[in-house]
Amino acid sequence: MATAPETRLQQLGITLPVPAAAVANYVPTVQTGSLLFVSGQLPMEDGKPVVLGRLGDTVSLEDGVRAARLCALNLLAQARAACRGDLGRVRRLVRMTAYVAGTPDFVDQPKVVNGASDLMVQVLGEAGRHARVAVGVASLPLNVAVEIEAVFEVA
Amino acid sequence: MATAPETRLQQLGITLPVPAAAVANYVPTVQTGSLLFVSGQLPMEDGKPVVLGRLGDTVSLEDGVRAARLCALNLLAQARAACRGDLGRVRRLVRMTAYVAGTPDFVDQPKVVNGASDLMVQVLGEAGRHARVAVGVASLPLNVAVEIEAVFEVA
Amino acid sequence: MATAPETRLQQLGITLPVPAAAVANYVPTVQTGSLLFVSGQLPMEDGKPVVLGRLGDTVSLEDGVRAARLCALNLLAQARAACRGDLGRVRRLVRMTAYVAGTPDFVDQPKVVNGASDLMVQVLGEAGRHARVAVGVASLPLNVAVEIEAVFEVA
Repeated sequence: MATAPETRLQQLGITLPVPAAAVANYVPTVQTGSLLFVSGQLPMEDGKPVVLGRLGDTVSLEDGVRAARLCALNLLAQARAACRGDLGRVRRLVRMTAYVAGTPDFVDQPKVVNGASDLMVQVLGEAGRHARVAVGVASLPLNVAVEIEAVFEVA
Repeated sequence: MATAPETRLQQLGITLPVPAAAVANYVPTVQTGSLLFVSGQLPMEDGKPVVLGRLGDTVSLEDGVRAARLCALNLLAQARAACRGDLGRVRRLVRMTAYVAGTPDFVDQPKVVNGASDLMVQVLGEAGRHARVAVGVASLPLNVAVEIEAVFEVA
Repeated sequence: MATAPETRLQQLGITLPVPAAAVANYVPTVQTGSLLFVSGQLPMEDGKPVVLGRLGDTVSLEDGVRAARLCALNLLAQARAACRGDLGRVRRLVRMTAYVAGTPDFVDQPKVVNGASDLMVQVLGEAGRHARVAVGVASLPLNVAVEIEAVFEVA
C-alpha cells in the first residue's frame, strides 16, 4: 500500500523530478543518525534550471513562488531517493533555509518561500510543517532566483 | 525555584517578547531528538519589526547591534515556548546563523552580531557560548536589518 | 599509527593552520551528540584574512577557489582541535554551507566552492563527500571573498 505522502503526490497529480546528481565532490544528501541533510536545490525542471534572474528586477513574485515550489519538489525528490523510493520514511521536515536572489529593495522573501512551504504541507501533511529561514541574497548559482536547502528527520 | 536562565532574565530586567506566530505553512520551532531548530527571527519589538534598512546605508552600527540583540530575545522567547516556559531546559545554544542586511562595502557583520552573542551569554551563561556564522546579505524580510536562526540542545 | 586523514595531510604536504580563536562571545566549535558544528571560517593564512573583495569585481575565479580551499583548511583545523588533535575521529563531513561575496551578476559560486569540496575529499576520502549549499552574498566579515561553515559527524 502506498504511504500517505506517495498517495498525496498521486492525488495532487505531481510527478517528482528525477533527482539531480551532484556535479562535483559533494553528494545530494547525507544522513547522520535520523537527520537527513539535503544539498541546496535549484528550481530544476526537466533537468534544466528555470526562473532565472532576480526578484525586484526581471522575476515577478508569481514566478518566484513557482521557483520556490520547484525547489521543494527537487528537495522531495532527493529525500525520496535517500529513503529508497518511499517518502513514507520521512518523519518530519525539520527546517528549510531559503535563499531568494533579489535587488536590495526586494523584501517579500516570505511570500516567495511560501511556494515551497505550501507544497511541503500539501505532500507531507502535518509532518511537512517546518522551521524556516528566508533571506535575500545577491545572486545564486546558474542565475536561478531561488535556492533552498533542507533537513529532514527520517525513519 | 527559578532555573538559572530565568533568574538571570529577572536580574537583567529583561522581559522576553511574546513569541511571534508563524504566519504561513511553517512553525516557529521544530524539535528532533535533543535538537531544537528555531525559525529565523527578526528584530520584533511589541509585535512590530524595528531597525529597518541596511547597515552601511541608513542603519548605524549601534542600531545594528540593537537589532541583533532583539533577534536574540525573540530566539529565546521561541526556545522558552518550545521548552514549556522554562529556559532551564536549554542545555546549550549550539549555533546561530546571523544575516546582516548591508551595502556591499559593509564588512563589520561580526560587530553587529555580537549584540546577539553577548545577550545569549548574559542569559544562558556558559551554555550560551555557541558556534556562529555571520554574513552580509542584500535584503531581509520586512526590510529588517538583521535576521538570526538558531539550533539549541534541549533536555 | 597515524589515521588515514592525518596520513593524507602529510602526503599532500599540507600543514593545517593554527585554528583561529573566536574573538567574541562565541566559540569555534560546539559538539552535540555526534554532531560537531563549526563556526563560519574565513580564508585565513598565517593568521591574516586573505583574498579580499568580491567575485565578479576584483577577485578572480582562481583566487575565489583558493579562498574556498583556505576556508576548508581552517574548518579542518577547527575540527581537528575539537577532536583532540586527530582528524581520524571525523566519521563524516555532513554539510558545508558556503557564502561567496560577489556582484549580482556573478553566478559561478559552485566553481568557487569546489575549491573547498575537493580539498575535503582529498583529506578525508569518501568521508569527505558532503551535502553542500553555495550562495552568493553582498559582503562578508573583514571583506573576505568566501566564508564556509560546516557540520561534521564525529566519533
